[in-house]
Amino acid sequence: MNKIKVGIVGISGYTGLELARILAGHPVFELGQVTSRKLRGTPLAELYPFLTQSADLTITDLDQDGLAKDVDLFFLAVPHGAAMDTAAKLIKAGKKVVDLSADFRLKCRQTYEQWYQLKHSHPELLPQAVYGLPEIYSAQIKDATLVANPGCYPSSVILALYPGLKQNLFELEQTIIIDSKSGTTGAGKKPKENLLFCEVYDNFFAYNLGKHRHTPEIEQELSSAQGSEVKVLFSVHLLPINRGILSTIYVQPKASLAEIREVYENYYQDKPWVKILPSGLLPQTKWVKGTMHCLLGLDYDQKTNKIIIVSVIDNLCRGASGQAIANANLMSGLELDTGLNFQPFLP
Amino acid sequence: MNKIKVGIVGISGYTGLELARILAGHPVFELGQVTSRKLRGTPLAELYPFLTQSADLTITDLDQDGLAKDVDLFFLAVPHGAAMDTAAKLIKAGKKVVDLSADFRLKCRQTYEQWYQLKHSHPELLPQAVYGLPEIYSAQIKDATLVANPGCYPSSVILALYPGLKQNLFELEQTIIIDSKSGTTGAGKKPKENLLFCEVYDNFFAYNLGKHRHTPEIEQELSSAQGSEVKVLFSVHLLPINRGILSTIYVQPKASLAEIREVYENYYQDKPWVKILPSGLLPQTKWVKGTMHCLLGLDYDQKTNKIIIVSVIDNLCRGASGQAIANANLMSGLELDTGLNFQPFLP
Amino acid sequence: MNKIKVGIVGISGYTGLELARILAGHPVFELGQVTSRKLRGTPLAELYPFLTQSADLTITDLDQDGLAKDVDLFFLAVPHGAAMDTAAKLIKAGKKVVDLSADFRLKCRQTYEQWYQLKHSHPELLPQAVYGLPEIYSAQIKDATLVANPGCYPSSVILALYPGLKQNLFELEQTIIIDSKSGTTGAGKKPKENLLFCEVYDNFFAYNLGKHRHTPEIEQELSSAQGSEVKVLFSVHLLPINRGILSTIYVQPKASLAEIREVYENYYQDKPWVKILPSGLLPQTKWVKGTMHCLLGLDYDQKTNKIIIVSVIDNLCRGASGQAIANANLMSGLELDTGLNFQPFLP
Amino acid sequence: MNKIKVGIVGISGYTGLELARILAGHPVFELGQVTSRKLRGTPLAELYPFLTQSADLTITDLDQDGLAKDVDLFFLAVPHGAAMDTAAKLIKAGKKVVDLSADFRLKCRQTYEQWYQLKHSHPELLPQAVYGLPEIYSAQIKDATLVANPGCYPSSVILALYPGLKQNLFELEQTIIIDSKSGTTGAGKKPKENLLFCEVYDNFFAYNLGKHRHTPEIEQELSSAQGSEVKVLFSVHLLPINRGILSTIYVQPKASLAEIREVYENYYQDKPWVKILPSGLLPQTKWVKGTMHCLLGLDYDQKTNKIIIVSVIDNLCRGASGQAIANANLMSGLELDTGLNFQPFLP
Repeated sequence: MNKIKVGIVGISGYTGLELARILAGHPVFELGQVTSRKLRGTPLAELYPFLTQSADLTITDLDQDGLAKDVDLFFLAVPHGAAMDTAAKLIKAGKKVVDLSADFRLKCRQTYEQWYQLKHSHPELLPQAVYGLPEIYSAQIKDATLVANPGCYPSSVILALYPGLKQNLFELEQTIIIDSKSGTTGAGKKPKENLLFCEVYDNFFAYNLGKHRHTPEIEQELSSAQGSEVKVLFSVHLLPINRGILSTIYVQPKASLAEIREVYENYYQDKPWVKILPSGLLPQTKWVKGTMHCLLGLDYDQKTNKIIIVSVIDNLCRGASGQAIANANLMSGLELDTGLNFQPFLP
Repeated sequence: MNKIKVGIVGISGYTGLELARILAGHPVFELGQVTSRKLRGTPLAELYPFLTQSADLTITDLDQDGLAKDVDLFFLAVPHGAAMDTAAKLIKAGKKVVDLSADFRLKCRQTYEQWYQLKHSHPELLPQAVYGLPEIYSAQIKDATLVANPGCYPSSVILALYPGLKQNLFELEQTIIIDSKSGTTGAGKKPKENLLFCEVYDNFFAYNLGKHRHTPEIEQELSSAQGSEVKVLFSVHLLPINRGILSTIYVQPKASLAEIREVYENYYQDKPWVKILPSGLLPQTKWVKGTMHCLLGLDYDQKTNKIIIVSVIDNLCRGASGQAIANANLMSGLELDTGLNFQPFLP
Repeated sequence: MNKIKVGIVGISGYTGLELARILAGHPVFELGQVTSRKLRGTPLAELYPFLTQSADLTITDLDQDGLAKDVDLFFLAVPHGAAMDTAAKLIKAGKKVVDLSADFRLKCRQTYEQWYQLKHSHPELLPQAVYGLPEIYSAQIKDATLVANPGCYPSSVILALYPGLKQNLFELEQTIIIDSKSGTTGAGKKPKENLLFCEVYDNFFAYNLGKHRHTPEIEQELSSAQGSEVKVLFSVHLLPINRGILSTIYVQPKASLAEIREVYENYYQDKPWVKILPSGLLPQTKWVKGTMHCLLGLDYDQKTNKIIIVSVIDNLCRGASGQAIANANLMSGLELDTGLNFQPFLP
Repeated sequence: MNKIKVGIVGISGYTGLELARILAGHPVFELGQVTSRKLRGTPLAELYPFLTQSADLTITDLDQDGLAKDVDLFFLAVPHGAAMDTAAKLIKAGKKVVDLSADFRLKCRQTYEQWYQLKHSHPELLPQAVYGLPEIYSAQIKDATLVANPGCYPSSVILALYPGLKQNLFELEQTIIIDSKSGTTGAGKKPKENLLFCEVYDNFFAYNLGKHRHTPEIEQELSSAQGSEVKVLFSVHLLPINRGILSTIYVQPKASLAEIREVYENYYQDKPWVKILPSGLLPQTKWVKGTMHCLLGLDYDQKTNKIIIVSVIDNLCRGASGQAIANANLMSGLELDTGLNFQPFLP
């Protein structure tokens, strides 16, 4: 099959590395440009000497060096705020864009500006940006020019709640409580004291209780599923592991566990990556490490009449770069799972 | 000061080791007998060659070797089910007992037998057993012959909820949700495949959702605080760290965060080990590692009208052996914190 | 391409899992039989629910259920001592065998019996067993019926020393000192107290100093390279990580670092998996995690006139199951790297 | 006993924290001043909210705020290069100084300037600086005004080799090879990409082979023991743990293992912290975590005629701040182990 050239804007972070790592084994995509302002001029092979099939590229800077002509699609692996202008520029130049930042995820400009404390410089692009969760929006992704790749926490949470809300199975008078725990790659590669090995190792803590920026993104998609406004209490914790998000979700059911399970199994039966575990089995982060999988465990607590949904994904693969490549696959007319059929990396 | 001899029944597990480790630095208690069925005849110095001040003792077996005459108080660091008969025997011999197992924690024999699937062989001792949480029951502990040392999870949860329930600050129509995460020492030292390093490392998972045996113990004490029956949804997860429990607790308030904070600060103002963190600060498991401390962080989510309480303890020190020694201190007429003034072990 | 059926004897351990995991993505091999005495009757999909493309197989027992007729080649992932009889039986039945145990690695029966404290029940097979290190013995492996898959430590050490000894570049009057450190998967999956998470985590120690059973295997191959007897001092340590071996090797040179580097680069230039790092760069275990790669860093200490070679591999992939599949590829007429082109799994 | 006020210059790093942590439980020393240029004005209780007995101090800056009059002794927990001027200033002001940096460890100014690539601004203080290894120099330390606290690696290595060299038990024609592995606290608290959790976790690597700045310090003290120049090959590796150094040392003996063991046991018999393990037992880093202990395991490899010495210490306690306090104890007329009788922190 003919190769398709793709580019990575922001090669130096963990999502940039994960894109390069996965693309090194992709049968169709090949890297045509990689950029990083601070690493301009460095050969890619020197930055990542451990990647054996990486393209023979030197890192460029988008502003100084311009766009590679033969690259059709770009992944934006830059922080929120930095992505919006670059996306606009690329789209103007006729490129397709998968933006891994938060800049185009929220349909409502005001919500974005409030939660991210930033003015959005290209609100005119918001209507055409497609939320890149392929289990829900695959049709729209195929035709999209600009895909807003979902956040890592929202990927784990939305897949866990979407079918139930869609079928109106939950009593929303009682707040949906989402207690998420994430591996440390989710915090990025920028050196900060609180992310040093000696600070994170053998430690565990909560942060941003009820204030995490992924909250409006989760509520946007859950409200869309439910057909009316859904509010959640979303708490996050930092796990002393590299990869993995586990979300423990508490909801009040309007149906039996068996009925809920059936709705979920039907919804995901033709989706390759989401799997409802058999009764009694709960997922572990290790079971999805390095994969596109989302495993869901469902349980019911009779005493308090609550359904508990436990969802696990790999935040870096499924929750970021792998999902971006899945979106790029669809945007390029390829099968969803091209180059993404990974087995979990364990033990 | 005159030394007081104490004994450890079940020296081979992690709570036995933690007792020995702490007692090696205790100014009053000294080890007079240590027992283990399977290690009988082994010198203590050979079992724990790294303890420098351990007593010159050889491990005995309680059945074969009998009780050391000069030991006044025994710690039972054996599994539930195995403790009740030993406790009865010791009490009959005139010894004081701190039982680290669950055998005497539940006031209601039926509840014990239902959750632990065991017949209780000494229900006659239940009324005299004192629940050994010193912030609540110090007066009773001082006079007790038999103290039921609290479970690790309950220690973290009860300290976090007791003052609020006592003052009727929470709306109990909405279920109290407790999402706890524990380090792996809580699972014991018995070799099991799922506790191997390669299984736990770089992994995270939930287990026993809503079914953990510490649930009735939590509900017993919370109901006592509230003055009426309290039901909770209690979920547990295994952290890939050695020590530490962090419980994230979600409750619906009947008062403002400031009022709740004041109640908590008043309740704990003369207790040396429980500290309410300043607004905006959340506790980390590392901040209490190796100590008797319980740190509580309080927050309020306006959007969903929930109070979030984050509680951390060291499951092995505060949640087991250190607390047992605190109880023994009180039972022996010593100050509560004798030999227990530890600074957190970090980084 | 036509599928070739392969079997795994001993599916329950870490090498069995790694075989199953890699084979789930292999383009030619497919699982035709998996065995485990203790798990007989369990569906493979229940043992490893996280493997998405695993064959629809139920675990059998070789003795009770016999051999699958349509399986051409078996991997033996059983302990040393248990492999020799099974290998003999399989070869008699006309099967090809890759034995991951130590039973056929040592050419000298007496050396085997001395180091492993076992009588060898099939010494007649020793002459035909080929030592399965493809960088050295690929020609013989292609024609072999029985391949003795190298040990994990020897894989890391022999690749690091072979070219230098072959060209007589080292002064052997000064003992070659090999200080190796291995991740914990190398210790297997059998539950033992000293392999519990709480024992290995946040810990590091040496074991079996100078007495590790991989010593004669290393000396056999190094002597073969040198053309005369080579003795080494081989020390091992347990790392609190899952995968990875790093060997730090100290030798006295008879040539300059530049000359030695050139010899190594020439020797490995047409081998896809062994790479000499540029001057000044030292390898990290993470750089080879989940791959077949062996990275070598070379340095020279002028003050003491020593060459230091640092070698890293993934003990479970390159050092065991991946290498076994590479050998099976060659034995089946496939390209060496079929199904084995992995990028390192990092971060 | 009357309290003695001490100060910490450089409270923000890991050695500063470890000093504060240990001093919080010291029966005689109390903190009278803590400094940090970048944290000036921050209350100590805010910097370390988890320390329960920390003094009611606000962080000052030495230059802007001057010296606390009532403080007799200062610990310098600042980087090499920054310590020498401060030490000179403090000594001029009549203070005693324990310098945790490398600035006064090397007797030879030229060696310092060559290895550290810095001009020494106060070479006149070198002759009076005492090398603060109490097992060797306790007499001189008692009378010292300026103590150069040993490096972490040298502490582990010198204690392992000193008695043997002193008694001329090793054949120095064959290079002494020292393969050390250190926990990550040894690399400091300054945020750097290569020290992030995600880079160090589940990883292991060598660095600075033969070029580590602790080499001349080791050689200085070993040469002093031997009475003639001793050269070593010293290699270092980074362990994915917080605390602990394990050094594996290879030497050629001139006496039997039993004779060597006897010399070591005699040398350390009246030293409280160094212990020779029984034959067959090898030390683990966890066995000394949080303590002043140095455990030595001795073994002999007959095949290659080498003695292997395995030495473990806690790099942060014994290898830095704890040792500094031991030196301060001696300088203040206290018993060596005042406030330092720690049991190892395990599991």
